[in-house]
Amino acid sequence: MWRASVVTIFPDMFPGPLGLSLAGRALAQGAWALDTVDPRDHATDRHRSVDDTPAGGGPGMVMRVDVLARAIDAAAPQGDARPRLLMTPRGRPLTQQRVRELVAGEGVVVVCGRFEGVDERLVAARGLEEVSVADVVLSGGEIGALVLLDACVRLLDGVMGHPDSGTEESFSAGLLEYPQFTRPQSFEGREIPAVLTSGDHARVARWRHEQAEATTRARRPDLWAAYAQAHDGSATNKE
Amino acid sequence: MWRASVVTIFPDMFPGPLGLSLAGRALAQGAWALDTVDPRDHATDRHRSVDDTPAGGGPGMVMRVDVLARAIDAAAPQGDARPRLLMTPRGRPLTQQRVRELVAGEGVVVVCGRFEGVDERLVAARGLEEVSVADVVLSGGEIGALVLLDACVRLLDGVMGHPDSGTEESFSAGLLEYPQFTRPQSFEGREIPAVLTSGDHARVARWRHEQAEATTRARRPDLWAAYAQAHDGSATNKE
Repeated sequence: MWRASVVTIFPDMFPGPLGLSLAGRALAQGAWALDTVDPRDHATDRHRSVDDTPAGGGPGMVMRVDVLARAIDAAAPQGDARPRLLMTPRGRPLTQQRVRELVAGEGVVVVCGRFEGVDERLVAARGLEEVSVADVVLSGGEIGALVLLDACVRLLDGVMGHPDSGTEESFSAGLLEYPQFTRPQSFEGREIPAVLTSGDHARVARWRHEQAEATTRARRPDLWAAYAQAHDGSATNKE
Repeated sequence: MWRASVVTIFPDMFPGPLGLSLAGRALAQGAWALDTVDPRDHATDRHRSVDDTPAGGGPGMVMRVDVLARAIDAAAPQGDARPRLLMTPRGRPLTQQRVRELVAGEGVVVVCGRFEGVDERLVAARGLEEVSVADVVLSGGEIGALVLLDACVRLLDGVMGHPDSGTEESFSAGLLEYPQFTRPQSFEGREIPAVLTSGDHARVARWRHEQAEATTRARRPDLWAAYAQAHDGSATNKE
């Protein structure tokens, strides 16, 4: 069974939203498992301290390497082959490709940083992969961990109702998804584009592809550059 | 008071993790407010349907424009000047700059897409700003909404213990943060870098800046390119 172990000083944040909807049902049915380890349970002083002031000065507090290492060792004893991820704004951005790789394995150990971050020595000492989810500053790694786990769990066998999602296909192709429409035919004077109700499947497919390219080019020049390079002359919306 | 209204078919996911830690304390003390509107309460059939099959065919279901528009109108009646964000992988990536702008306003209305997305006509009909949080496919917009709200709430007056966070400064400068260290001095043979315990504040500042540049260059070529351009000749780690 695919198993997630989360190292967090806020264990009550889990499963949180993952306890509802498809992920929650899958968790209840044993399609995946979730456990948490609280670093405070691995502190050595009577205040259960997990942090200390930054070496070299500066604001805030830094999470201690010794306390976190003990918590990670409790979550994933020697021989546990699951990848260990550290949620941090210093990390490489999480990608759908990495999510697919994680889903193909036995699970994941997720370490949630707090305060000004974790002592850097932890990364090498426990082989952590530093991952970020968005270019914003969050109050801790916990909500990033929820992003990661939701992305993984929905891909597990039997969790999704319809694994052939268009969004999935679109992301895999390196484009944003085409726009969607459904009934009613008219809303406040706005109609469903005629091509979609034409019954001409080839035209529909072509229109959607053009829309996906145009949206990607306008909103995500980074994705567009990679896509255009990969497809060379075949992108229909080049400038 | 800064107020967030979330349009979601999973209202029980809120406040979720935002009910704990600093955000939760701030919520309990009235430093911000949170309400939810469930589109199912604005459906018109006895099954409380919020979705229908995609026009033009394809897998999955699309959220109806009429039902969602009614839910948004209930969350934010005419005259409510708060920005309306739609969490969707089709959106522009959320930035710390946009978070700061949102925090300076009266609050935010967040619409959470599900299934294959929302009927595109909703975006223009209700003036939605499409926002994405990560390049992964999630089961819905709810966890993205938690990312957005956490990023906002921690910046509200009186929520954070120490608003002069180094991570904040680092992001504002366009760099990833420098690595952090704290006691113990030695861990499994790994020492705190000597410069940090030298007491030479100028050397510490220089070392940290070099580390921030090197990390950014290695992990985020996108941020590095923007930073190097903005700083022209002054970046110390250019190739």
